[in-house]
Amino acid sequence: MNECTPILDTGLRGASVASTKISDVNGKLGKLLYRGYLVSDLAEKVCYEEIVFLLLYERLPKAHELNQLKEKLREKRKLAQELFNFLKQIPAKTEPMDILQAAVPMLVRVDPHAGKESSADKSTIEYAKESALQLIASIPVIMAAWDRIRNREEPLLPHETLDHGANFLYMLKGEIPDREMASFFDTSLVLHAEHSLNASTFTARQVASTRAHIYAAVSAAVGSLSGALHGGANVRVMEMLKAIGSVDKIDAYIEETLNSGGLIMGLGHAVYQVDDPRALILAPMSRRLGEIVGDTTWYELSMEVEKRAKAAFKTRKNLDIFVNVDFYSASLFYSMGIPMDFFTPLFAISRVSGWSAHVIEEQFALAAHKPALYRPGASYVGDYCGPNECSFIDIDER
Amino acid sequence: MNECTPILDTGLRGASVASTKISDVNGKLGKLLYRGYLVSDLAEKVCYEEIVFLLLYERLPKAHELNQLKEKLREKRKLAQELFNFLKQIPAKTEPMDILQAAVPMLVRVDPHAGKESSADKSTIEYAKESALQLIASIPVIMAAWDRIRNREEPLLPHETLDHGANFLYMLKGEIPDREMASFFDTSLVLHAEHSLNASTFTARQVASTRAHIYAAVSAAVGSLSGALHGGANVRVMEMLKAIGSVDKIDAYIEETLNSGGLIMGLGHAVYQVDDPRALILAPMSRRLGEIVGDTTWYELSMEVEKRAKAAFKTRKNLDIFVNVDFYSASLFYSMGIPMDFFTPLFAISRVSGWSAHVIEEQFALAAHKPALYRPGASYVGDYCGPNECSFIDIDER
Repeated sequence: MNECTPILDTGLRGASVASTKISDVNGKLGKLLYRGYLVSDLAEKVCYEEIVFLLLYERLPKAHELNQLKEKLREKRKLAQELFNFLKQIPAKTEPMDILQAAVPMLVRVDPHAGKESSADKSTIEYAKESALQLIASIPVIMAAWDRIRNREEPLLPHETLDHGANFLYMLKGEIPDREMASFFDTSLVLHAEHSLNASTFTARQVASTRAHIYAAVSAAVGSLSGALHGGANVRVMEMLKAIGSVDKIDAYIEETLNSGGLIMGLGHAVYQVDDPRALILAPMSRRLGEIVGDTTWYELSMEVEKRAKAAFKTRKNLDIFVNVDFYSASLFYSMGIPMDFFTPLFAISRVSGWSAHVIEEQFALAAHKPALYRPGASYVGDYCGPNECSFIDIDER
Repeated sequence: MNECTPILDTGLRGASVASTKISDVNGKLGKLLYRGYLVSDLAEKVCYEEIVFLLLYERLPKAHELNQLKEKLREKRKLAQELFNFLKQIPAKTEPMDILQAAVPMLVRVDPHAGKESSADKSTIEYAKESALQLIASIPVIMAAWDRIRNREEPLLPHETLDHGANFLYMLKGEIPDREMASFFDTSLVLHAEHSLNASTFTARQVASTRAHIYAAVSAAVGSLSGALHGGANVRVMEMLKAIGSVDKIDAYIEETLNSGGLIMGLGHAVYQVDDPRALILAPMSRRLGEIVGDTTWYELSMEVEKRAKAAFKTRKNLDIFVNVDFYSASLFYSMGIPMDFFTPLFAISRVSGWSAHVIEEQFALAAHKPALYRPGASYVGDYCGPNECSFIDIDER
């Protein structure tokens, strides 16, 4: 089947380029599996650290293994402090995703086993997993520190005992988060951790295929995620909600958007043909968090936009349209008091575990039967001098 | 034809994924075209700045346009000085490619038109080309400065009047380069500027397809290039030459390498089925530069390795094997006194013009008939719980 998928200038849509054991996205049924487990089960029952273990070690951890992993992440996140001076050099208005793309290759210097003077055998899968944990532990620390630095506050040191997600909220806001908010945040990390070959993950695999180290691959993935059409989507959902402002203005907004051929942000997905299973979990969290913080405006607005936009698409275009992961994460993150330009970095804070699993799979797990290095062809359509090569013309005669 | 290329787990070898007007690689005939012009003509007759113009503006410049471009690059390279303090923060043993991948996103801050506080219309192709020129001007400055900083020397300011290539050698070595050496260096920049969808260029296009900015795309390409199987190849050629050491040890080296199933570095290419046209230009430059610096050892050793390895492959395996671009660039760069860990950065210093052209083509020139964003599929082969999804198991029962 795969052999005859057209691929030229299609953005490789629908063309299977790699085998993977990491996740499966069933767009028809709205099912997402991480290493065989339904994400809806995982979101309800496990913490983000268990997802990290599952993605990297291919099974759910036993209780003592989970504790060991949490402790290891706590140790490694302390090392990220070494980048605070680097961050302090950077002008405050720099975009957070630019900061993150630049900081990730600098983490090589923080990792005690990386760098050319270390005697660690860097060709092993164990080494790659240690580096993955260093990345997973460090990225939230860097981002939380950056938010304080750009606001002329001293960054906080990582908390000694808090878990991964709660520590990020603590370092960002300067106070230990409410238990329920921390739990919702953790669940949103679980939900964003992995989604097969989206653009950024494909970038990570491709860079890894050259045998570049995992920091190079993850930094590249951050660059890919920074694009407006990829990680920028939940920001655009929030901007849309703010532009609408109140429930009574929804109909006019939808009308105008559809008339002008525009998009309703957070609706539609390259893969899902039903509601995104992650959106179904995020929506009630967004509602409940609104209640906790005493403002359900954004949740209610989202819900009404969903309902009315779906109806409008059905009536006007006879199209069934579905919410994607970005639709309810926007109001959820906003209600948590997370700055809007941190929505995309939040995606990276979670997805780094999926990227890492793919880098490792590309370099180790399934590498035996694959040629190294993605090296596609291009179709040359240059017509500068007709069907022939151009004859060179000296500069004075041009 | 393209429609039926198998692509699953093939590294996309031979599969045309994108139309391009930028370059054509004819592996059978050993012809490489930049925008319709044979690279062998260009290498002989133009300077690197003309290549930059050709790649970005789709034609060779008139004399006054070339002068304007040179002046613009001189202006823009001065701005890269702002990153010297950033570089001084970095531990001296950091790998140069890690530095470069980190520094490129920081260039957004140097570019007066980038960043969210600038009022420039960032959606235009003109803006993208200005950013491309900022990148092209800055990367050599950053790398030359880094070499001095890591050696505890103050970086030099960019030269006020020197051309692009000569300025890099000046900033690296602290003296105005010999005219012939500068000319050879410039030609090597011409030869490395563009080569269709190699791994790093494909990475750049892919990141650009998400509508990430050009700095994000080029930083990702640097990460891709850093891999041992990609930009690292000319370093490995030099390591091989040093390991062989002298002509009388070549036969034993080839014998041993072939017996153990190893590779002779710099021989063989994914695309060319004849000698790489770039190698044919680099070889005599390597010889002549050896004469200038009074040591032709490395050139002679290279030439003998080529001759004997080709003969050995023919005799033992009945295979015709060919030199690639990395084979003679190794001895050329080494004879120029360029540190070996700068061979891969040199590749980036030149290739940034090709990357930039591809980013712009992806985002503007041919975008109209393409879906945005590369989003391939994967084939899920996870077998964790047989053909079914895994049933969730509570942590205490695992």
